[in-house]
Amino acid sequence: MNRDSAGLHVLSRQECIDLLASTPIGRIVFTDRALPAVQPVGFCIDGEDIVIHTGVGTKLAAATRDAVVAFEADDFDPQAHTGWSVTAVGRARAVCDPSEIARLSALPLTTWAPGDRGHFITVRTEQVSGRRIRH
Amino acid sequence: MNRDSAGLHVLSRQECIDLLASTPIGRIVFTDRALPAVQPVGFCIDGEDIVIHTGVGTKLAAATRDAVVAFEADDFDPQAHTGWSVTAVGRARAVCDPSEIARLSALPLTTWAPGDRGHFITVRTEQVSGRRIRH
Repeated sequence: MNRDSAGLHVLSRQECIDLLASTPIGRIVFTDRALPAVQPVGFCIDGEDIVIHTGVGTKLAAATRDAVVAFEADDFDPQAHTGWSVTAVGRARAVCDPSEIARLSALPLTTWAPGDRGHFITVRTEQVSGRRIRH
Repeated sequence: MNRDSAGLHVLSRQECIDLLASTPIGRIVFTDRALPAVQPVGFCIDGEDIVIHTGVGTKLAAATRDAVVAFEADDFDPQAHTGWSVTAVGRARAVCDPSEIARLSALPLTTWAPGDRGHFITVRTEQVSGRRIRH
């Protein structure tokens, strides 16, 4: 297994996608009025795309429309000092096709917040990187 | 307690700072070669500033130098569907003063990655927002 300059184990693309698929909550990173912004979201993996469910009129829906965003998920045990993190960077897309919306509606998506969930966003995992920490 | 448009409980500034102080790992959000970037880090709270320990020559050290960054921490229980998230936005600063470095070195900082930890970054919590989810 490869290590990076900080001594962390470098994960393969497939390991990154598998870890993303193993966790229901991640964080989407975007730009909001020229400032860095980050928001936790429920998500799931569809093929190699990240799928997020949000409200139609939300800041997230507006700010991520055709923007390049980052997406991060991690799991860390401070006691054992073990964990992993995966970051993807890619273009976000609002899903508008009714048949695709119907298909995505059947996915096992965790929702972070209550309220309206009428809008799907997908993020292409164009660049993926991940690290694992072993004690 | 206030609720936002999604029905989440809005946390006060003090509640946000107290929650940040309760958790050892967060994520710093910055721009890396014009793309959104996010990295998990160990951190602690010093007054109302976020303190991060990283290596001298890291991408994080370079990319956050005098930049406005976002910082996020959260905790979520998918079973109980309860949790919170806090986001801060503010200017990052490399700590160069030897007496300040000595003082920060005594803080109980968790490190995310092994390796060189010679560089401190502080982030002013200029804007703070937080939400709590109750089932």
